[in-house]
Amino acid sequence: MQSMQYELLDKINYPQDIRSLSIPQLNKLASEICHFITYSVSKSGGHLASNLGALELTIAMHYVFDFTKDKLVWDVGHQCYTHKILTGRKDKFEKLRQKDGISGFPSPAESEYDQFSVGHAGTSIPTALGLALACQQQKNNDKIVAFVGDASIVNGANFEALNNLGLVKRQMLVVLNDNSMAIDVSQGAIARFLSKVRLSHKYEDLRNTTNRILDHFPVVGKKVEGALESFKQTLRMAITPSRLFESLNIPYFGPVDGHDIASLIQLFTAMSHLNRPAVLHVYTKKGKGFTPADDNPTKFHSTGPFKINGEIEIPSSCGKSFTSIFSDVIVKLAKDDERVIAITAAMPDGTGLMKFRRQFESRYYDVGIAESVAVDIAAGQAKMGLKPFVCIYSTFLQRSYDQIFQEVSLQNLPVIFCIDRAGLVGADGPTHHGLMDIGFLRMMPNMILLAPANGIELEAALKFANNSKNPVAIRYPKEDVQDDILPDVFSKPYELGKSLTLKSGSGNIVILAYGSIVFEALKAAEVLKADNIDVTVINARFAKPLDDNILSMLNADNSIITVEDHYTACGFGAAVLEAAAKAGTNTKNIRILGVPDDYINVDSREHQIKAVGIDAETIIKTVKDLQK
Amino acid sequence: MQSMQYELLDKINYPQDIRSLSIPQLNKLASEICHFITYSVSKSGGHLASNLGALELTIAMHYVFDFTKDKLVWDVGHQCYTHKILTGRKDKFEKLRQKDGISGFPSPAESEYDQFSVGHAGTSIPTALGLALACQQQKNNDKIVAFVGDASIVNGANFEALNNLGLVKRQMLVVLNDNSMAIDVSQGAIARFLSKVRLSHKYEDLRNTTNRILDHFPVVGKKVEGALESFKQTLRMAITPSRLFESLNIPYFGPVDGHDIASLIQLFTAMSHLNRPAVLHVYTKKGKGFTPADDNPTKFHSTGPFKINGEIEIPSSCGKSFTSIFSDVIVKLAKDDERVIAITAAMPDGTGLMKFRRQFESRYYDVGIAESVAVDIAAGQAKMGLKPFVCIYSTFLQRSYDQIFQEVSLQNLPVIFCIDRAGLVGADGPTHHGLMDIGFLRMMPNMILLAPANGIELEAALKFANNSKNPVAIRYPKEDVQDDILPDVFSKPYELGKSLTLKSGSGNIVILAYGSIVFEALKAAEVLKADNIDVTVINARFAKPLDDNILSMLNADNSIITVEDHYTACGFGAAVLEAAAKAGTNTKNIRILGVPDDYINVDSREHQIKAVGIDAETIIKTVKDLQK
Repeated sequence: MQSMQYELLDKINYPQDIRSLSIPQLNKLASEICHFITYSVSKSGGHLASNLGALELTIAMHYVFDFTKDKLVWDVGHQCYTHKILTGRKDKFEKLRQKDGISGFPSPAESEYDQFSVGHAGTSIPTALGLALACQQQKNNDKIVAFVGDASIVNGANFEALNNLGLVKRQMLVVLNDNSMAIDVSQGAIARFLSKVRLSHKYEDLRNTTNRILDHFPVVGKKVEGALESFKQTLRMAITPSRLFESLNIPYFGPVDGHDIASLIQLFTAMSHLNRPAVLHVYTKKGKGFTPADDNPTKFHSTGPFKINGEIEIPSSCGKSFTSIFSDVIVKLAKDDERVIAITAAMPDGTGLMKFRRQFESRYYDVGIAESVAVDIAAGQAKMGLKPFVCIYSTFLQRSYDQIFQEVSLQNLPVIFCIDRAGLVGADGPTHHGLMDIGFLRMMPNMILLAPANGIELEAALKFANNSKNPVAIRYPKEDVQDDILPDVFSKPYELGKSLTLKSGSGNIVILAYGSIVFEALKAAEVLKADNIDVTVINARFAKPLDDNILSMLNADNSIITVEDHYTACGFGAAVLEAAAKAGTNTKNIRILGVPDDYINVDSREHQIKAVGIDAETIIKTVKDLQK
Repeated sequence: MQSMQYELLDKINYPQDIRSLSIPQLNKLASEICHFITYSVSKSGGHLASNLGALELTIAMHYVFDFTKDKLVWDVGHQCYTHKILTGRKDKFEKLRQKDGISGFPSPAESEYDQFSVGHAGTSIPTALGLALACQQQKNNDKIVAFVGDASIVNGANFEALNNLGLVKRQMLVVLNDNSMAIDVSQGAIARFLSKVRLSHKYEDLRNTTNRILDHFPVVGKKVEGALESFKQTLRMAITPSRLFESLNIPYFGPVDGHDIASLIQLFTAMSHLNRPAVLHVYTKKGKGFTPADDNPTKFHSTGPFKINGEIEIPSSCGKSFTSIFSDVIVKLAKDDERVIAITAAMPDGTGLMKFRRQFESRYYDVGIAESVAVDIAAGQAKMGLKPFVCIYSTFLQRSYDQIFQEVSLQNLPVIFCIDRAGLVGADGPTHHGLMDIGFLRMMPNMILLAPANGIELEAALKFANNSKNPVAIRYPKEDVQDDILPDVFSKPYELGKSLTLKSGSGNIVILAYGSIVFEALKAAEVLKADNIDVTVINARFAKPLDDNILSMLNADNSIITVEDHYTACGFGAAVLEAAAKAGTNTKNIRILGVPDDYINVDSREHQIKAVGIDAETIIKTVKDLQK
């Protein structure tokens, strides 16, 4: 990345560097950071709009608090770029979301300024609550700040924390960063309510609110309860969002302007002295400062690299992704079957449901960042004979674990889980990999587990699932499909628990792969053939139930190598081992290739596949080892 | 059970039988059912107080709605006894919570009147939402009723559903059964608020509220919005709980008297015509009608059998349970180490924390039925150097899956999970077994997994965990400890990843057991010895990391039988298989004894252990098979 020159930013490395700046200088710094972030994201990809929206807020927080001892906790954490810039990581933006670079999310491994590695929503208030209770226990005065967006605050875990905030008898500030814009348009009563309130406010109102808060705020030493009372009495404008917080007995202040650094500094200073939990409600404009992000914040939530001047160009990959195939197939299915319903949790774009939403608005549900309720809604619908397709990334599906267990598997209801981003996800890193879904789902009775290898199979898998009387989980990765290899073979229809032999070898080595990683096995087979090692390659299709044919192979004198894009623990290979043990067969030569027991750092998905050893090269090496 | 004679109840089998009764007759029926339930629970054990509290409400619901087509969804479901009595299952109360009898929870397998098998909290509003959306889709007019207690409504999943209730544009009634009493005393702002409001109401207020609701309620055909408006204008008493629901834009009615059948029938009739979702807030007294339950509802939440007349006697088992050992040890640890903190989610009694609470009030947290936030609070505390012990039943820990993943395992924070009710739980049945925790936890990097075999080991395991720098999960079952067998051997201190050989046999068969089920292995070894088969018995202690010594046994010419109180899928035995495959060793003769891929019905834990085949007899049979 070509180095840019910035008058102020070039001299800023840590929070102490900004505390000597004047307000006009801080404003100038904000616009320099805005340029810096936009430029960086244009090169590396990443979250743009949310970071620009939180820019001034972050500067003001770092100006007031000392986060070497005070603790700042982010929700999701995708809006932490300014925070990273101000905490010693500015130079690393050249490698944002790249190997040996910095994560796009907070990461304690990078900096003592980061408390938790995050990436999922609904964790800031709960973990901040834990930090605050610990400080209370330890009688230390570190300030605790939870920074949460309006899309995340509706998550059940945040609600549970708000309901328990009364445990805290000391300072703990919740900054509600309200841009009335979730990843997509926020869903739910609270989101609608916040939008409505926002629209009813003029800029003048925000200024008045700020002044009133500052006028009536308890000064150090003054009794807080009295001050809060006087605050409530004088602040008589329509700060209706307070109702939710009031019903939870949480002092609420706002809304105020989230782009006015001078006021924010005063507000944070005043509120840092409050010796009980409180909420400061701040309005920001997602994507402020960069016109295309401003106009189209959804598109710019998380982007690949793009051009910064003139026409915006988001490079689409050459091929078709699993997501886009899904997007087309679900629409086809819905046309033919009016029972088909689609449900997502604030990810209509990422899961490929935009087209479905346009065409079948009344059969589409977005519940916001609330994966638990998404699954239960599907259970209720399936109970009534509908065919709900629940579209949630593998990592976020972990939020619905108990709902899948009790409301779906135990009832044996035909809910269909479309698990995008299964396996290694590349640049989003450890919080976003989907490496546990095979294990956590296959323990549940009644579940059927599938992993289509390509677009042809994804379509067949979805059709199969639509006709299933059992719950079905279909996992597929964040990558392009390979539909040009052996298309005729892959076109064989899905049959419950039947695998697909892609290549019959003359030797006694069988490579058994689950999902798109089977193409690594095919690549390996090619190379091995040149060495006169003729292996069999089987596309498993099902992790549950396993193909009996696979079991019969275990009976023979074969050596088996399983390959999967999942932890080796509890995954597809483990299922094969368990089946072998159950059948009492010779499992001497089974090798399991999967992701080792570790967290896999930011890199490209391609590199991660190589690094963990589920690539063609490792398969070749394993085959050769078995030949020895 | 000796058959009792009831004037009315004897003639009542289905809801249609009660619709011809007069109000005085319904009241008499209520008192007969009260006697019947108390008598039944005194024989079989079960939930008493909550069922007596919901008695009149249930009669009124069945009087008004027709649940052959309308749908009644219970939260937790422990309060469904009257419902079962009125829906054809009265005669089966002789076998309540027993093999071939009826479950203590709703069960669609028993009756078409039950929608979902439940047992966990926070599912009624989400699944009812799904049912309502399906009816909306299908344009049918079935009425939907979600019945939820005040302890459950604070669960994050219910909140997520309330926030999404706006999706429903038709009838859906949420009955909030408020007894201001969770399993233990409810925690959190909403619970405190409900209690406060409740205390401020006189009986007269409830009558007035009921009359006002009925006066102003929309009659069929009248425009609802206008009626709601007029309702709001006239109902000016302090119905403050409405703030929460109002902030979520949900029409709220109440509070009304939950024991006044006549009024309840009128209210349900009126509200069944409302063509949008609404909440009816009902006050009940948990344990109404049976004095001891009334005085001490916590004790009577779920009981074993007891005497009905005169002195109440809850038979304590002869031995000490894992729970009671835990109860003593956590207090000891806390005395020696001021970093020790205990956290539970509404289960202080069940998890053995009552003593800790009394002695270390400021280090004890009960967050209510909110397992997700319990884990995140622990993560925050561990981050600050404290030693949080999170005490949650295995089945409910599923609610925290993603929090354990992201906030604990990914950060490698030394949170200690004390997983009571791991394995088969007996009479509580399929929703309450803890059969997945080994699998779902061992996929997570950094986790250490332990299962002490008895009380001696539980104490050692807890001490080990308290000194661990990693997160530790300790699982133990709902049973008494066996501390009199080989006490000296079991007293060997815990060392990371080291198993304990209980018996060295001269033969080449090794039984490797995880947890208290090892006593079945010892029993088997005794019997086998009489047959001159001298097996080795190893108490694994750790499922992660596995003992290298176990791996070396796999290298030898041994046959291994693993035994665990967990699904065979992904469990301890699977971990042994994976380790063997990784080491490339001969796993020819490994047999995995665990729970098969099915839901295990209500029975005693002892019988369940036999039925699934993890008992001494099955071990003996497996050893003999291997000898062939």
